[in-house]
Amino acid sequence: MKFSDLDAIFLPKSAALIGASRNPRKWGFKIGLNVIAEKFRGAFYLVNPKETEFLSRRVYPNIRDIPGAVDLAVIVIPAPLVPSALKECGAKGVKAAVVITSGFRELSPEGEKLEREITGIARDHGILLVGPNTMGIYSADVKLHALMVPVAPFPGKISFVSQSGNLGVQLLTESRSHEVGFQKFVSNGNEAMLHSEDYIEYFGGDPETRTIMIYLEGFKNPQRFLEIARRVSREKPIVLLKGGKTDSGARAALSHSGAMKSTRNISSAIFRQAGIIEVEDTTELLDAAKGFERLPVPRGPNVGIITGGGGLGVITTDACELRGLRVPPLTTGLTEDLRKIMPDFWPGGNPIDLVATGGSRVVHTCIEKLAAEPYIDAVIALGVANRARAFADTPQTIFRTLPPEMLQEKTRVIEEGDRRLAELVHEVIERHRKPIIAVSLARPGLKYEEISPIVTYPTPERAVRVLARMYQYYQLQQRKS
Amino acid sequence: MKFSDLDAIFLPKSAALIGASRNPRKWGFKIGLNVIAEKFRGAFYLVNPKETEFLSRRVYPNIRDIPGAVDLAVIVIPAPLVPSALKECGAKGVKAAVVITSGFRELSPEGEKLEREITGIARDHGILLVGPNTMGIYSADVKLHALMVPVAPFPGKISFVSQSGNLGVQLLTESRSHEVGFQKFVSNGNEAMLHSEDYIEYFGGDPETRTIMIYLEGFKNPQRFLEIARRVSREKPIVLLKGGKTDSGARAALSHSGAMKSTRNISSAIFRQAGIIEVEDTTELLDAAKGFERLPVPRGPNVGIITGGGGLGVITTDACELRGLRVPPLTTGLTEDLRKIMPDFWPGGNPIDLVATGGSRVVHTCIEKLAAEPYIDAVIALGVANRARAFADTPQTIFRTLPPEMLQEKTRVIEEGDRRLAELVHEVIERHRKPIIAVSLARPGLKYEEISPIVTYPTPERAVRVLARMYQYYQLQQRKS
Repeated sequence: MKFSDLDAIFLPKSAALIGASRNPRKWGFKIGLNVIAEKFRGAFYLVNPKETEFLSRRVYPNIRDIPGAVDLAVIVIPAPLVPSALKECGAKGVKAAVVITSGFRELSPEGEKLEREITGIARDHGILLVGPNTMGIYSADVKLHALMVPVAPFPGKISFVSQSGNLGVQLLTESRSHEVGFQKFVSNGNEAMLHSEDYIEYFGGDPETRTIMIYLEGFKNPQRFLEIARRVSREKPIVLLKGGKTDSGARAALSHSGAMKSTRNISSAIFRQAGIIEVEDTTELLDAAKGFERLPVPRGPNVGIITGGGGLGVITTDACELRGLRVPPLTTGLTEDLRKIMPDFWPGGNPIDLVATGGSRVVHTCIEKLAAEPYIDAVIALGVANRARAFADTPQTIFRTLPPEMLQEKTRVIEEGDRRLAELVHEVIERHRKPIIAVSLARPGLKYEEISPIVTYPTPERAVRVLARMYQYYQLQQRKS
Repeated sequence: MKFSDLDAIFLPKSAALIGASRNPRKWGFKIGLNVIAEKFRGAFYLVNPKETEFLSRRVYPNIRDIPGAVDLAVIVIPAPLVPSALKECGAKGVKAAVVITSGFRELSPEGEKLEREITGIARDHGILLVGPNTMGIYSADVKLHALMVPVAPFPGKISFVSQSGNLGVQLLTESRSHEVGFQKFVSNGNEAMLHSEDYIEYFGGDPETRTIMIYLEGFKNPQRFLEIARRVSREKPIVLLKGGKTDSGARAALSHSGAMKSTRNISSAIFRQAGIIEVEDTTELLDAAKGFERLPVPRGPNVGIITGGGGLGVITTDACELRGLRVPPLTTGLTEDLRKIMPDFWPGGNPIDLVATGGSRVVHTCIEKLAAEPYIDAVIALGVANRARAFADTPQTIFRTLPPEMLQEKTRVIEEGDRRLAELVHEVIERHRKPIIAVSLARPGLKYEEISPIVTYPTPERAVRVLARMYQYYQLQQRKS
């Protein structure tokens, strides 16, 4: 079997939940609710011989009783019942099955035998098998949330394969407050049939995926993994977090994913050779994926910094140098240009300190002129973006004393400023193909219903870390070509 | 002058704002509004010869016209007017002055001369001088928010001195979403009279301060700084972020704080010798200060981990080992004990994987038994705390399909579970004097009006980094005694 086309998993026209239940404590309830509440775009059928109705929908006793075709089966029934269910899926012409059920290779030798059995059945019937022992899948375009927990990430261009279901869905949950958008997600469980590299290959060819994100503990086939990664990373950035890097961590990983007993450790140098960007922690995994998803990569190490305050400029400069980037002085020409719009006491230099002028004309000019300089490869702007969000978070007590019309007018002016800055930033990024990153303490959080139009991180250090990773990817690309 | 008693700055019974203004664009408006809106506990007077009324309060033409005593003057008038204002403060018997005004040493040689002049005047009149060129001060107990921007941190036991006003107030703003509480804050500006070390000494003797937090770019008197830090750090943890660590960063710092031209760089080793905990970035500055504020330090490197999912346990274990902590296997005795309450398929080991049991009895027993083990020095609990907050953040679409009574009952049960876990954790911390840290993706954010009762970080890596710093402090303390 070739696994490069996994559309039946991620873009099914119809899906059935085998093991749907009215008992709210059961996964057959929770997953069904997630799929229905998040409005899966395809036909969705429920299967359980002991039930007749679920949230006002009909429940079929058997998948073969479903009138229409079924592309994807999501299976939550007990492990011993999975083989016969898979056979019925085969008879029905189901193309892919997500086996949520656990109790296979990760549990016992009997479970391992059962896992071999279901893999054989799937193979015989040409069914793509996700898992078993997976927490499920998500796909933005068809709005499929076949997940054990209620998670609704922003739709985006990142696709994510996680060898830990728990870590995967936690990151999807957290991703909203990071303003990271996802295209496709799979918790790949025991990898009985499909391995991490199969999903990577598929995401590599998926026109809706711009960046691939991986959490990995072990390999079923390290050589194939690296071959595929090497090929895919030429086209799309692959950002990876390795679990089990240390001795104790590897021991914990062994007891966690029984599927990975064939694990061997792979050094960071080997990941790098395969063009993979290996990150340090879960925060960086989301941060870097977001940068790669939304920005052009810097073609050199030189960063221009614009800052609303001296100390933040200092911190950002330190972070750049510590991460292998540079903060070069401004040319005399640019300094002269900026003097024309800056107050007399502007000290000059990069970081460009806005010295509390902060007017939008000054900010816009600084961004435009920095990005236009041939020796500047990227711009970081501190404290000038997403001001409306920061303003909304300002302690409310302060406003009780103000007339409401003053407050409204202030909000309007700030929102208009945000909008114009975002337009300018997009236009400048397009013109020069250089990344422009904002730093803003405005916590996006769940209360915002959309992703900020400018790529923003909450601290300078995180913005710099992303930029350094993007420059690393650029260097890897250069080396290969 | 001895500066160990700075009560007149941080605990004034009365304060006057010199330069109060009705113009909302002026600092004399913004600072006045902050002080009034946040309900300063002392008497608050407004001074400006050109105004008569400010937010329905009387404005005095001169500080000497104020009927009562004035402990603290906050000065926002233009630099050339500051000397005479300070003389009038002296005549009035003012004990301390916060000079917000800029345009001194950081601007020009004339400014430097003016700064020497105001410092002389302050000294002659026995006035403690904060700044000039400061963004102000905050003090929780008297509810004094004499700051240029509206910031209302949670009250707490951390006191913070920042050589960058901008970075300082940004961190205070961000601190709410980190659930960090502050006791006192000062942006120390040009340090014309009072230096960082004077505030450190005062915070060291302040019974309301448990942890001291510093952002530092340079020193006026490095030797004295280190002497005081060495003394104070024996009693209270000092957590420091150094700005200008790199060549470019130091250059940026020079152009930023003219006051620090006497700067010399100090290596991390020297900070360590003075008992100072030097952190890597702004996030860690807040994280570490919070840990030190609220938890006993671990007396050894061994961490017990409880996790709701395998992958998160792996990541946490890796982070511990990479930061010099250890995740030892469980003793046979403890393993046997836990087998009694765990399902058959519990794989054993540390991290203790709750294998989706997650019942509160199991969680409580794991925490109690781990903390009671003599060879365990700290406990990290992943995904078990602050569940009500996480639940409140669950995508709302999922609940539109549920009966409201089901939702209410679920919320009530989760809240009750949170409350009982918090009680247990407090009790166990007291009994064993070991830190217990939770990791929860529940974003505290501004919508929560109080700090979570269990010390919580949003990622395992950040929790581990704090624990490693706390162990470092313990080791420093041992070395000294």
